[in-house]
Amino acid sequence: MAKLYFRYGAMNSGKSTSLMQVAYNYEERDQKVIVMKSSIDTKGDSYLVSRIGLRRKVDVLLQPRDTLCEKMGNLSGIACILVDEAQFLTPRQVDELYEIAKRIDIPVICYGLRSDFKTQGFPGSIRLLELADELEELVTICRCGKRAKLNARKVGGKFVKDGDQVAIDGNDDVTYESLCGECYLKYVGSILKESTPEVSEQSLEKVLKLTK
Amino acid sequence: MAKLYFRYGAMNSGKSTSLMQVAYNYEERDQKVIVMKSSIDTKGDSYLVSRIGLRRKVDVLLQPRDTLCEKMGNLSGIACILVDEAQFLTPRQVDELYEIAKRIDIPVICYGLRSDFKTQGFPGSIRLLELADELEELVTICRCGKRAKLNARKVGGKFVKDGDQVAIDGNDDVTYESLCGECYLKYVGSILKESTPEVSEQSLEKVLKLTK
Amino acid sequence: MAKLYFRYGAMNSGKSTSLMQVAYNYEERDQKVIVMKSSIDTKGDSYLVSRIGLRRKVDVLLQPRDTLCEKMGNLSGIACILVDEAQFLTPRQVDELYEIAKRIDIPVICYGLRSDFKTQGFPGSIRLLELADELEELVTICRCGKRAKLNARKVGGKFVKDGDQVAIDGNDDVTYESLCGECYLKYVGSILKESTPEVSEQSLEKVLKLTK
Amino acid sequence: MAKLYFRYGAMNSGKSTSLMQVAYNYEERDQKVIVMKSSIDTKGDSYLVSRIGLRRKVDVLLQPRDTLCEKMGNLSGIACILVDEAQFLTPRQVDELYEIAKRIDIPVICYGLRSDFKTQGFPGSIRLLELADELEELVTICRCGKRAKLNARKVGGKFVKDGDQVAIDGNDDVTYESLCGECYLKYVGSILKESTPEVSEQSLEKVLKLTK
Repeated sequence: MAKLYFRYGAMNSGKSTSLMQVAYNYEERDQKVIVMKSSIDTKGDSYLVSRIGLRRKVDVLLQPRDTLCEKMGNLSGIACILVDEAQFLTPRQVDELYEIAKRIDIPVICYGLRSDFKTQGFPGSIRLLELADELEELVTICRCGKRAKLNARKVGGKFVKDGDQVAIDGNDDVTYESLCGECYLKYVGSILKESTPEVSEQSLEKVLKLTK
Repeated sequence: MAKLYFRYGAMNSGKSTSLMQVAYNYEERDQKVIVMKSSIDTKGDSYLVSRIGLRRKVDVLLQPRDTLCEKMGNLSGIACILVDEAQFLTPRQVDELYEIAKRIDIPVICYGLRSDFKTQGFPGSIRLLELADELEELVTICRCGKRAKLNARKVGGKFVKDGDQVAIDGNDDVTYESLCGECYLKYVGSILKESTPEVSEQSLEKVLKLTK
Repeated sequence: MAKLYFRYGAMNSGKSTSLMQVAYNYEERDQKVIVMKSSIDTKGDSYLVSRIGLRRKVDVLLQPRDTLCEKMGNLSGIACILVDEAQFLTPRQVDELYEIAKRIDIPVICYGLRSDFKTQGFPGSIRLLELADELEELVTICRCGKRAKLNARKVGGKFVKDGDQVAIDGNDDVTYESLCGECYLKYVGSILKESTPEVSEQSLEKVLKLTK
Repeated sequence: MAKLYFRYGAMNSGKSTSLMQVAYNYEERDQKVIVMKSSIDTKGDSYLVSRIGLRRKVDVLLQPRDTLCEKMGNLSGIACILVDEAQFLTPRQVDELYEIAKRIDIPVICYGLRSDFKTQGFPGSIRLLELADELEELVTICRCGKRAKLNARKVGGKFVKDGDQVAIDGNDDVTYESLCGECYLKYVGSILKESTPEVSEQSLEKVLKLTK
């Protein structure tokens, strides 16, 4: 029975390139795919665009309120469903994709960010992490040369810790930088500040002192 | 720099056996580990017990309100931190483990369930899925012989779809069965029923009809 | 310490695209890479060419007799070494790459075929499979829609089982098709015919009969 | 269609424990497995023994000359075939296992060493690395705390670089230690010494000097 895949990675890890390569591999075999993207990602409009220079029209541009199955209709002859920016799917849409994979036997491959600039999941990525049959990571490079797994947001070139979960790259002076865990803690700050009472941070400092 | 690992798997996938094997491998090398477990899991009390016959005392029994770093103290000479039943960690405790891995350079390996009997994540597993450096799956076998990835709950031997997220195996007539996605949909029912308005299910049925 | 990676996949699994994406990710960060290719692969001469439309000049074109370290010289400031068509490396060259990764702390990522049209390894891929720190698979699609892992050779459009290990795609009427295991056994034939005395095949037939 | 798995790891990485856990998971489901071991491994005779304390009788003890299919007979009702010490299989036996997986649809899971004390593959492991559908690594710990992937042999407590490929742990003063790549190069010596003319080593030294 077909699987639901979640291929996650930080910004600029080549997710769109990888999606377009998979689509290409199917089509070269004369097998039909459906390419979807969430409309929340306004970059490229109804096109997938990869920084390395590839470009492809999207078949379905999804709104958060869409019932995915209504957008689909007849899926006969479809070999694979590919979704870009899948972090913006609603949990309901992910559930629909899971049932399509299992009940119609069509593999569904979702590409997306795992977490936002505060290291918290997006609604779509949390549901995919909970449910997908296969979790596969795409990696990119941190400024230090290590593997970058986290996304940091900059406004006007400076790292920020506050703001809305969604702010599209390039709008309102917002940019992103993919960082490894160490560089994130160093340049953006402790993740305890975000999620926990002060006591944790003080305790951590105590452990750090004792241990060194 | 050390990593935070999340090794997830359905019930009875050998998570405790694997944890005890890793602890054994370190200790055979005269390297010291800390083994932790959440107190929410009352099975075995302060012991890890694997069905295959292994048994080991836990070093730290964690309460949800615990500041993990306060429980720790001096970590000098610790080669690895191992956590069982990590789905019961609070997000804050996961954040603490991440900072320990990155700032004190001690690998942290968490074993736990990915999702509950309704296919929804636990607070600890969601945070681990969002943040862990490596996500690694342990698999077990469904009644049909395929890989089981989901957990189904039975009360009095019958699959149920409602109830609290936490109900310990063996108490109050509750048992669990690990299932593959297809068998879950077949025996427990659609996951759309749980999370989505009726329209999704009707649309899915329509797609199913059109496609077949 | 840096790792030696072997990313293997059947023909047309997007190996060169993936390599160029990784190089792009480094260079976007102003980090320098070296891209190498074996001269045995005459396609594209000193260029990497991917079917999807990407193209890039190779920094080092390796001959089988080359001592790789002699070709290298000063590696200061190199963030990563990338090798395409790595199945054509000699075992000695793989050993050199391993020592470079471990002793100079530069990650080395090799892309290549795992096996030839008879399902046997190439000298370079066998050495990489034995030694690389990480083995990562790139997948492509079989004619049946499943994951293709094997390479079948055609001469004049017909599957063949005999011939030299190396015959470049496009020359002398030679083409290749990536197949899954089942389709390979079905269209090309049993792999027992290749490697084993007749008794195995007869025994297998007996087991097949008994079991069904 | 069923897969052939190769789960490889250095000495003491918990391969036999993992195999016995998988067998246990099947049998708990009332599903039947066959457990095989090569007779070249004389430890434990016809028992699998794991250091952590588990023990299990082997169903089939394989000789190198055995035609595996002849040993098998009727496979009806077998849910899985499990092989320990699979590095000692002959390539022919691996081919037989592959055809069984694909033609009778029974998953075959092979556990074994990837390479010998000179970092060279065993006949069985090379064939599995070339052919298996899934390559999965089991890791253990080096004396330095990193992941150990290589096997070093000691005679009378001293690392050696020469000797036969097979020498069973415990016989004739032979012991093994699992090491990471760096520790192997440091304590056992360069792998170039083994496989390559002197020129490589001199060139490597030159690169090392230039680069530092």
